Amino acid sequence: MASPCNRGFSSKSSQLLSRLASMAKEIPIITLLTDFGLHDEYVGVMKGVILSINSRVQLVDITHNISRHAVTEAALVIKTSFRYFPEGSIHVIVVDPGVGGKRRIICVKKEGHFFVAPDNGVLSLVMEDGRVDHICAVTNEKYFLKPVSSTFHGRDILAPVTAHLSKGAPMARLGEKVGASDVTRLDIPTPYRSSPRELVGSVISIDHFGNLITNIDEQTLEGLKGEGTWADLVIRLGRSTIQGLSTSYDSVKKGAPICIIGSRNLLEIAVNQQDARTYFKASVGQTIRVKGGP
Amino acid sequence: MASPCNRGFSSKSSQLLSRLASMAKEIPIITLLTDFGLHDEYVGVMKGVILSINSRVQLVDITHNISRHAVTEAALVIKTSFRYFPEGSIHVIVVDPGVGGKRRIICVKKEGHFFVAPDNGVLSLVMEDGRVDHICAVTNEKYFLKPVSSTFHGRDILAPVTAHLSKGAPMARLGEKVGASDVTRLDIPTPYRSSPRELVGSVISIDHFGNLITNIDEQTLEGLKGEGTWADLVIRLGRSTIQGLSTSYDSVKKGAPICIIGSRNLLEIAVNQQDARTYFKASVGQTIRVKGGP
Amino acid sequence: MASPCNRGFSSKSSQLLSRLASMAKEIPIITLLTDFGLHDEYVGVMKGVILSINSRVQLVDITHNISRHAVTEAALVIKTSFRYFPEGSIHVIVVDPGVGGKRRIICVKKEGHFFVAPDNGVLSLVMEDGRVDHICAVTNEKYFLKPVSSTFHGRDILAPVTAHLSKGAPMARLGEKVGASDVTRLDIPTPYRSSPRELVGSVISIDHFGNLITNIDEQTLEGLKGEGTWADLVIRLGRSTIQGLSTSYDSVKKGAPICIIGSRNLLEIAVNQQDARTYFKASVGQTIRVKGGP
Repeated sequence: MASPCNRGFSSKSSQLLSRLASMAKEIPIITLLTDFGLHDEYVGVMKGVILSINSRVQLVDITHNISRHAVTEAALVIKTSFRYFPEGSIHVIVVDPGVGGKRRIICVKKEGHFFVAPDNGVLSLVMEDGRVDHICAVTNEKYFLKPVSSTFHGRDILAPVTAHLSKGAPMARLGEKVGASDVTRLDIPTPYRSSPRELVGSVISIDHFGNLITNIDEQTLEGLKGEGTWADLVIRLGRSTIQGLSTSYDSVKKGAPICIIGSRNLLEIAVNQQDARTYFKASVGQTIRVKGGP
Repeated sequence: MASPCNRGFSSKSSQLLSRLASMAKEIPIITLLTDFGLHDEYVGVMKGVILSINSRVQLVDITHNISRHAVTEAALVIKTSFRYFPEGSIHVIVVDPGVGGKRRIICVKKEGHFFVAPDNGVLSLVMEDGRVDHICAVTNEKYFLKPVSSTFHGRDILAPVTAHLSKGAPMARLGEKVGASDVTRLDIPTPYRSSPRELVGSVISIDHFGNLITNIDEQTLEGLKGEGTWADLVIRLGRSTIQGLSTSYDSVKKGAPICIIGSRNLLEIAVNQQDARTYFKASVGQTIRVKGGP
Repeated sequence: MASPCNRGFSSKSSQLLSRLASMAKEIPIITLLTDFGLHDEYVGVMKGVILSINSRVQLVDITHNISRHAVTEAALVIKTSFRYFPEGSIHVIVVDPGVGGKRRIICVKKEGHFFVAPDNGVLSLVMEDGRVDHICAVTNEKYFLKPVSSTFHGRDILAPVTAHLSKGAPMARLGEKVGASDVTRLDIPTPYRSSPRELVGSVISIDHFGNLITNIDEQTLEGLKGEGTWADLVIRLGRSTIQGLSTSYDSVKKGAPICIIGSRNLLEIAVNQQDARTYFKASVGQTIRVKGGP
């Protein structure tokens, strides 16, 4: 190594460059979705565990206010959210009423995204449409925090496994491959035709603004509408009816009810600048009927 | 390229260096201020959209608990907050009751900070004092997420535009220039003199601790005080009166009311280690009268 | 500098490399723990101040929902949390009922972690076990934001001092050394033996799931159990008794009460998939009695 270059570019610099090369890679994104709330230190502690293993990550909270133990609610939220993150993102989901019991933890790769979650159905909607690349059980204790508690696997298993994935640990090392048909599925209600001209769906969630989100998507409504117009549709919720679909909240006056295709591509029932939950005394699970035009 | 240096410093390294050069720049800071609450996935999804375009940013939540559709509340919060962030920060504000309607979205540059928000008055207090560098409408769909929904412009327009700004997209590309006088202004109540010795203001917000924040700033109080002392001022709220201004909460005993110049340089009414909202049964909008000394 | 190498590796690149060398260091982690809630801009503003000084940090919220002015609650949370973060992390804690008064601000280094907090006892549990490396008062105004308000030292003192620490400012520059015995301690109740076979402790916090966390740790229970078994222990809370300790929530049926060693290594009283606070009408401070086997 007698090259004159070594005067300007030492082997120490070489080491630095190789370290920097790994930094020049994209920063891995890890999203967190739990029912932990924001009162306790649980979310912070999970982040601490992740950062202890890989400090060069972008941590994003999807929400921690999933209703306690509400697996279906979380399943809907992660399905709605994940495609807005870049490929390669790792989504860790801890809504886990069976923690410490017999349910296993799985890792799913789909459309370039990674999901780490208990196998209690919370990933079943994510897996619904499109190709799943790989599924494995998470059993390799090498990636766990020891000792593993029986009450907080988010901290002891899911967080460290997620962090190791973000550093490039291959899924094949996490545990045995699992077939897609072996993954726990939720029984989520889907809309059906009660007659050729009537569709029956339900309210599947209510958001912070009090908007009622239904399980009826735009495509299904298109089918019902057929040759008619959006204005012909009649939406019924309890004893109330709303005539026609609108294209923006403010197409009606403040305080008036409205039906709209919301940002999730689902039929939503809203009240312009007010709370539809209160207005209609609505609740999750409530039936929605949509009649097509004459 | 027969230089002996190429043995130690290849063109691949050159590429790496140029990539690293861009990393060595300051990390752009993006702040988020919304009325979305923390129950739904809305904030997380906006962050996903931003990170899909630029993963090398610092995302900071100012608050997502602005009361629903409360444009004035958000206008006060962003005015109070932005100068604590470094120049070059980009502030995205989504309190947007008119989403999908006729209101436009604007981008404002002021004091080296960038603001992206609906043109509904939420930026009017930020623009109040000092020079504004540039204002434009945000209309260039090249920077939008397609298709653009009619209910969630935070995700489809404001987030991606903010991310492109953070990567160096020039404001001139976002849309036509807008004159400062064409920006929507809020009509925020300001304090006035009801007599040479009395100032009338109001409670403009109440914080987490129950402290009542008024619209009366230190300078205005100085004017009222004149040659008198802070101890001479008499503050009246409903039927209660407080004599004099204090300099710290614990200058009175626990549970006692107090007037103080708070951290926003505004007159605040507090109760030491207790909740002034409850103590005075106070609410936003309530009148505050301050009498100068004899 | 006529070396041929300079063609490929200029002095500008040298500067870049030195800048990058500092970037290749670990990213400093700063955690925030406050009673500020998430309604106001207070937390966001503290982060703005930190990022204005050092934009290359990982900011992690532990929680901002400590009950207002609840120093003991925060002391328990930081003690439970900090070891899950990597060494070198800086923990800033702002639960500060005495802000602007006579209480001082201190910085503590322990087990490679840094803590910046008011000296009101909030650090006393962190300091309890193990060696403390260094304690100093925080008095050097060079590191403060000017002017220092009397109501928001989190923004004006704790945030900027924390940021400077993250950039390498040595503790010796912050202020005079303080002896461990001069730090304010809290009087936290500890469990005691009311008889050779009975332990008396109390509920010290209740989490988001309604689990009752006691101050009785596993080791103390081991002592009580002696030659007996976990199944022999009888736990009494008010008029209710629970027989034996379980190892996971779902070892009882849904809705049934259970005692378990929780993730903090403390005895917890829970109800499987329900809320023990409601079930037992429990509250913080309530007495827990544990009887050993026969």
